[in-house]
Amino acid sequence: MPRGASPSSFLPSLQGLRHEQGPLHRQLYERLREAILTGGLPPRGRLPSTRALAERLGLSRNTVEQAFAQLDAEGLLERRVGSGSVVALPERARPPHGATRVASRRPVPPPVLKGRARRVSELLLPEQPADLLPLTPCMPALEAFPLSLWRRSLQRQGRSQGARLLAYGDEAGWRPLREAVASYVAASRGVRCGWRQVLIVSSTQQALDLVARLLLEDGDAVWLEEPGYLGARAVFSWAGARLIPVPVDDEGLCVEHGVSRAPDARLAYVTPSYQYPLGLTMSLPRRLALLDWARRAGAWVVEDDYDSEFRYTSRPLSAMQGLDDAGRVLYVGTFNKVMFPSLRLAYLVLPEALVEPFRRAKALTDGHTAPLTQAAMADFMERGHFTAHVRRMRGLYAERREALLEGLRRLASERLRPVGSADAGMHVSVTLAGREDDVALVARAARRGLDPRPLSIHYLGPRRTRGLVLGFSGVETAALRTAVAALASVR
Amino acid sequence: MPRGASPSSFLPSLQGLRHEQGPLHRQLYERLREAILTGGLPPRGRLPSTRALAERLGLSRNTVEQAFAQLDAEGLLERRVGSGSVVALPERARPPHGATRVASRRPVPPPVLKGRARRVSELLLPEQPADLLPLTPCMPALEAFPLSLWRRSLQRQGRSQGARLLAYGDEAGWRPLREAVASYVAASRGVRCGWRQVLIVSSTQQALDLVARLLLEDGDAVWLEEPGYLGARAVFSWAGARLIPVPVDDEGLCVEHGVSRAPDARLAYVTPSYQYPLGLTMSLPRRLALLDWARRAGAWVVEDDYDSEFRYTSRPLSAMQGLDDAGRVLYVGTFNKVMFPSLRLAYLVLPEALVEPFRRAKALTDGHTAPLTQAAMADFMERGHFTAHVRRMRGLYAERREALLEGLRRLASERLRPVGSADAGMHVSVTLAGREDDVALVARAARRGLDPRPLSIHYLGPRRTRGLVLGFSGVETAALRTAVAALASVR
Repeated sequence: MPRGASPSSFLPSLQGLRHEQGPLHRQLYERLREAILTGGLPPRGRLPSTRALAERLGLSRNTVEQAFAQLDAEGLLERRVGSGSVVALPERARPPHGATRVASRRPVPPPVLKGRARRVSELLLPEQPADLLPLTPCMPALEAFPLSLWRRSLQRQGRSQGARLLAYGDEAGWRPLREAVASYVAASRGVRCGWRQVLIVSSTQQALDLVARLLLEDGDAVWLEEPGYLGARAVFSWAGARLIPVPVDDEGLCVEHGVSRAPDARLAYVTPSYQYPLGLTMSLPRRLALLDWARRAGAWVVEDDYDSEFRYTSRPLSAMQGLDDAGRVLYVGTFNKVMFPSLRLAYLVLPEALVEPFRRAKALTDGHTAPLTQAAMADFMERGHFTAHVRRMRGLYAERREALLEGLRRLASERLRPVGSADAGMHVSVTLAGREDDVALVARAARRGLDPRPLSIHYLGPRRTRGLVLGFSGVETAALRTAVAALASVR
Repeated sequence: MPRGASPSSFLPSLQGLRHEQGPLHRQLYERLREAILTGGLPPRGRLPSTRALAERLGLSRNTVEQAFAQLDAEGLLERRVGSGSVVALPERARPPHGATRVASRRPVPPPVLKGRARRVSELLLPEQPADLLPLTPCMPALEAFPLSLWRRSLQRQGRSQGARLLAYGDEAGWRPLREAVASYVAASRGVRCGWRQVLIVSSTQQALDLVARLLLEDGDAVWLEEPGYLGARAVFSWAGARLIPVPVDDEGLCVEHGVSRAPDARLAYVTPSYQYPLGLTMSLPRRLALLDWARRAGAWVVEDDYDSEFRYTSRPLSAMQGLDDAGRVLYVGTFNKVMFPSLRLAYLVLPEALVEPFRRAKALTDGHTAPLTQAAMADFMERGHFTAHVRRMRGLYAERREALLEGLRRLASERLRPVGSADAGMHVSVTLAGREDDVALVARAARRGLDPRPLSIHYLGPRRTRGLVLGFSGVETAALRTAVAALASVR
């Protein structure tokens, strides 16, 4: 269309505005705007008067007026009393290459991702199933969660705290919850801390991410348990750390091996209560050796105590944090596995010197955690519901664990052999006899609706034990028995 | 105490266990454990039999038995039938320097922080007040929030979704909320997207942090509005970006200035609807120029549309995202200011190519956002409560804004002059006449219980306008009038 020409050739496409698609003035505005921006209506092109356009389109004049007013407000039209309106989009703001914007609406080749955006696509992340499936590791018994008690805590706090719970909260956490966590980890885990050392976060994953970002620089060495937790490996890898796999034996992390391979590491990540995925407890001598190394090397120890609540016959070893005299241990705990995954509450117990940097990093990267959920959690703990729930789940999971082990003994004792000595946790790992491929086996099990995980993917190095990580906590005992039988029959 | 000697010299400190301090066996266990770990009881040191110790301490034998059993389980004691127990902590696991652990319990000098942990302490972060104060920028009218409607949405979804809401959710967000957001931003802001392009996050801050981590490498240049939002500056700075302050004039970001200073920047962060803190709207030509630069440079544009809901007379310009043909715009919106800050829901609308990397980064650094809150938000929107609330707040904030401006005109017209032409947002910035120091003025105002923010801290470069950022939305009109009068009298 030549410059300054009448736009009537364009107008037919304004036909067909329909009430069902929202306000007519809005539809008209959108079509005109699109035409202006894409070159269908050229700069300085004239539009008919609102009266003429209304008549031509069979719309009320008010409708057209509203559309023009909005285009005017956006700087797309210049309105002239008596002489209609002119497209006002400045020439220099238009695509310089002569093509109209209509043409450029063709699919644009996707941008090439590089650096961190590409690296994040290459990381192996722990997968969460979309549905509740048998054998998913670390899935709590949702059907046994005392939902009505939890709702009462939510409602009670919602009412009593009022507007305080709507406003901003302290990024370090809601004080009553920080206090409740400090008491809880002192009593149940031998952690020594004041409530100010407790930082509330959304998840273990967020805790580890904050650790990685605050305490590591590009290229710093990090000791990881071999095999170990994928979420930790991924987060430290993405942070640019040099990952040092340190083997795990019957006593847990082989500290001497770590010292010989990377004495100058900045950080060691360990799961001493119930090693993930092997299910061992780290011995006291190893714990003390790790702490001694950390003190001498000026390194940090991250103690992920992810399901220490579940120990079925003996009492658990107390946390390493309580043995640490040098302020080198960061203790991580989570409520998302003991309560339910969508709760989104976990915590870090920090050495004093790290409290303020971590609070600031939390503020910078996320902000405060939802105060209502925190207040309800504190209420739930103060009323004793939390410890009662843990106690009940301990009984339930012990039963499920036994059902899993019994089923394995009976149906697959030659093929699937449990590893790990500790009678604890929410999963059992088994090794595969012979040279069976665990990744292929898991894929076949998935087609039967089962959700075990391959053990071998938890290794960083080339020496990998093939096996399965089997969750026992998430489904009822009868369903678990069926699942074990189904697993045993998968070939 | 010599090796193998009787531990009786140690025993007196076991006196004074008290019922008020929890189970006696636990207290006894803790004291013995401490003594073993700190060297008060040496390796291979003998303990009396449980019977003898019980008698000596006036405790039941069962109490002592429980304490010893736990020490045994932890590997701290070796129990011998008939001949008492021996401290079992292996020598090599003890501190090697000869000092006992008691000695090392003296305060340890705090670790020296470096790198990112130190840098985070040096960043200027936006501060959130602990209380609701007059003049806090961008604080919604919490007293006017329809809390009972919101609770009903929460309860309805809690009941109807059941266990689904307890389990893991999609890290990209709850599908009905992603759909509701896609419809909402299309209708109200002219954003063009499918629901899969919507990523649900906890806050604008988390959105910006993910952007910084995924799209920037160390040393990449980033254009920031000068003056601009502190939260964005801090997050890009901490990510290691090179910050390029680009001045803002009456039309918004001076794109040509940015091109001349850093044509190869990787990213531009803008607040085009209502520039923070100056309160201008970015003109259409500037928007198109920015998009053209981004397309040519292969750069990203982050459009932070933080309070676009609040426009009081004219309609807002549509979002830049709708003008972007090249997939270079990341659109950020938040519910935390329109609803209430503790909601913890915001969203990113992403170019297709970035959807999966962002979902993975969210999974890696945080996990899924609480599904119940998301489901309730979707419900609240689908029932029309959200748009009704926005409409009511628009009326309320227009009145409060007018009260603020009227108060300033009447009481401080010479000293405090509003800037910014757009009648929008939740704050107004004013400049200070003369050479008055805004930081000092804010400190004096804070002593009167007022919470304005200094304008000058929002500048990166040396040319800073002194002034105040005044929030008008958070307190009722009468209280706001009182606050303006108090502010005008602060000298």
